[in-house]
Order: sequence, then structure tokens, then C-alpha cells
Amino acid sequence: MLIFIGMGLWDERDISCKGLEMARNADEVCIEFYTSKLMGTDLKRIERFIGRKIRVLERGDLEERCDRIIETARDRDVVILTAGDPMIATTHSALRLEAEKRGVRTTIIHSASIISAVCGLTGLHNYKFGKSATISWIPSRTPLDVINQNLSINAHTLLYLDLHPRPMLIRDGIEILMKIDGRIGDLFGVGIARAGSTNPDVKCDRLKKLIDYDFGDPLHVLVVLSKKLHFMEFECLKVFADAPDELEKLVE
Amino acid sequence: MLIFIGMGLWDERDISCKGLEMARNADEVCIEFYTSKLMGTDLKRIERFIGRKIRVLERGDLEERCDRIIETARDRDVVILTAGDPMIATTHSALRLEAEKRGVRTTIIHSASIISAVCGLTGLHNYKFGKSATISWIPSRTPLDVINQNLSINAHTLLYLDLHPRPMLIRDGIEILMKIDGRIGDLFGVGIARAGSTNPDVKCDRLKKLIDYDFGDPLHVLVVLSKKLHFMEFECLKVFADAPDELEKLVE
Repeated sequence: MLIFIGMGLWDERDISCKGLEMARNADEVCIEFYTSKLMGTDLKRIERFIGRKIRVLERGDLEERCDRIIETARDRDVVILTAGDPMIATTHSALRLEAEKRGVRTTIIHSASIISAVCGLTGLHNYKFGKSATISWIPSRTPLDVINQNLSINAHTLLYLDLHPRPMLIRDGIEILMKIDGRIGDLFGVGIARAGSTNPDVKCDRLKKLIDYDFGDPLHVLVVLSKKLHFMEFECLKVFADAPDELEKLVE
Repeated sequence: MLIFIGMGLWDERDISCKGLEMARNADEVCIEFYTSKLMGTDLKRIERFIGRKIRVLERGDLEERCDRIIETARDRDVVILTAGDPMIATTHSALRLEAEKRGVRTTIIHSASIISAVCGLTGLHNYKFGKSATISWIPSRTPLDVINQNLSINAHTLLYLDLHPRPMLIRDGIEILMKIDGRIGDLFGVGIARAGSTNPDVKCDRLKKLIDYDFGDPLHVLVVLSKKLHFMEFECLKVFADAPDELEKLVE
């Protein structure tokens, strides 16, 4: 069986008790740091915590060379550890699909994901998030198109920031967007740094002002707010994200 | 400190190792089954696993009588255990807001949430999910409005099903929607039952056909698909959710 186990958001202790037990009992344990990263730990600490030697998978092991892993999982329990919740990265669903097509069973042990963590950290209502997008180092209109689509239905936009060749900071992401369309800088956003750690940083302001805010170390993500806020969302952003008073005019 | 700890999706072993350790070391441990439920376990098993006596909170303890918990947390570590990831329910962010306003520190230990789990179980791309909504036993146009908004930007809609007075089944939810607007029955959807368990059930078809499909025990959620699917989403739905061949016409 091919077992995808989420490691959660920050360090080795964010894995679920069930995931830990399955990793300890598996025939082979692999990990991939390509689709996301755990900033609060490293391979050695993870190996010590789980009590197993872990093989690090490269992108190619998950994609063009996925044969090896799938065929090993036909008769043995192979665990793939991933940061966050597995399958948020399309790479994982492609691998799971290929395994199931070949008759190799798969299972998923879920874990915390940035998707739901942003709601907790910001106080923004989960049901008001629209489509999400990634800001890549290679500029693209896609994130702007998604923001505009979401604004048209009064939805927030969660923007992931590129990890390669280095983790993008909130500042970088906003600058990339503003180079394509400067008007975006007037929108309100919330930056979230180090979700899942003991010192997350959450700050709300107009995007053009967030460029000057020091969020500290990555990983960072960015939320662009919808045109209207629920009163409770505004209250939470004031207290949790030091939002400016002028944000109140968005309350519907 | 007021510590919100997510319990994940199914049973007592879905809590993270970090969450378990914090619950074991807290001065007081509470749990609430109001905003969501863990169907794969019960209070006794959770108490045994954590090794602590746990106080069950009613809705009123979280809302109008929240004073007691907040003031206890001023000098002691009070844990509130919740199914899923904390803060997805607005009740939790309201409680956290009130605590922080009074100068009582709060922290969140994240866990798996149905939001990200549906991506893993269905193969649908996370970035294509739009706003979500709840289908209540008391009929409302809101879920239909949200579906239509999401369709206008080619986004999927995750629909939660009411838990009170009893957990709504996928069949009930679709019937409630179709009584308001029968045309909705022609849209394609994916029903997901028992996410996080060892026997989740995932089935894709037109909504009017899903009414006759037996998903088994709750909890259930429902996704209404966008007008267009990515080719990989279609492939995954065929393999993971036994989707009908006619779904292929949605592939863009």
C-alpha cells in the first residue's frame, strides 16, 4: 500500500499520532520537501522522532520515475511524508492516480494545511474564501485574474508564494503583482508568516503598505481581502492582525 | 493561556503529537462536540488516550457563558479540543477574539480539516474551490446563491451539511436544494462520506442521481463541480469516485 502522511505545518511533532504509528510500522519511509517545506525542523530531527531512516524523494521520483515507488508499494507498505496535508499539491494526486490505476492500494493520513490555518490565524471566515493561486517568480497574470474573479463574488483570495529557487516573501509577491497591475496595491490584504509555529506573524494593511512590513523568516502566504467584510472578520483583523482603522469601511 | 487544539477528522489518534502533549500538560482540558463531531470515537476513548478527565462544553459555554473559560485561562493553561481544525467554526474565532481583547493569550494547534481532505479524497484541485456554504435543515437560498457565484468563476463549491438536530445525509441535502430549484439536480457533484476514516466513500454523478446512492453512515459533505474540469480532475474522479463517462464533456 502507498500511504501518504501529512506532517502538518511546522515541525516533526505536527504529525498526527496515527500518522506517526503508521510511519513507524511501514516497510519503507520516504519524504519529499519539493511541494512544501517544514521550516521548524530538519531531516535528522524527523528521523529521530519517527525512529526510522527516511529516504528523501526528489521531484523526479514523484513524477517521471514514479514507477519505482508504486511497484515497491504493491507488496509492501511505503509511506510518503509530505509537509501540510497530502494531495494539496497536484503532484500527489497524480501519483495516487497512477498507483490506483495499476491496482496498487493507497491511503491518506490527513494533517493540518495552510488552507484552514489561515482562517484560525486571521479570523477570516472560511466560507468566504474563493479560488486560490500561486505567485511564481516567473510573473504571470493568473493570480491577478483569480483575485478579480474572487472580488466579483465578494470572496477572499489565498495566494501561495513560490518556493523555488528560494521561498518568496510577501514583499516579493506583492511587488511582482504590482509590476503587472499597480492598482492592486490599493487593495487590502493580510500577510501570514510561519503559520503553525509558536511565533506566527499576521499583519493586515493595503498591499502597497505591506511591502514595507517585516514579516521575518518564511514561509509566507498572502490573503487579498474581498470588497466587503463581515463585522466579526473586521474585529478579528484589528486584534489579530493590527489592521488599520480605515479597514472598517469594508464592513457590510 | 487559552489553547485551541484540533482533533482532526475521525478518531482520537488524529490529534497531532504536539496537541496530545499540550493536552496532557494543561491545567484543564475541555472538548466541544457542537460545531463538529468525531464519528470514530467517543469521550471515554478520548479521555483514555489523552489520560485526562475532559469537561464537555455546550454551545452556551462557548458563547454567552464564555466568561468562565476565558477568566480561568488568564492564569492557567486551558485546552479546548475541537473536531477538525479549530477556528473553521466562527464560534471559535469569536471566543478567541474575546479572550485576546481581555488580554488573555491564545494559541492554536492546527489539525486536519475537511477543507483540505476533500482534495485528497476526490483529486479535485484545491485552487479551484470557491466559496463554501452550509445546507441547513431550515431551507435557505444561500447555498444555491453560492453555487451560482462559484459557477460564474468556474469554481467548485464545498457544501457542509447541518449537524443539528441530526447529521444531514447527502441525499437530504440534495433534496433540500432541489425543492428550492429543481434545475440544480442536473449539475455534477461529488459526495464524500466518513473522510479521515479507513472506509471513506466518494461518489461522483449528477446531483439528482446521487440521491439514490447509499453513502452509508455520516458525516457527509457534498461538492458541486464547476462547469469545467481539468483533465487530471476528471481522471481522478473516474478512478477515485466512479464518475460516469459523460463527465468527460466538462474537461476543458
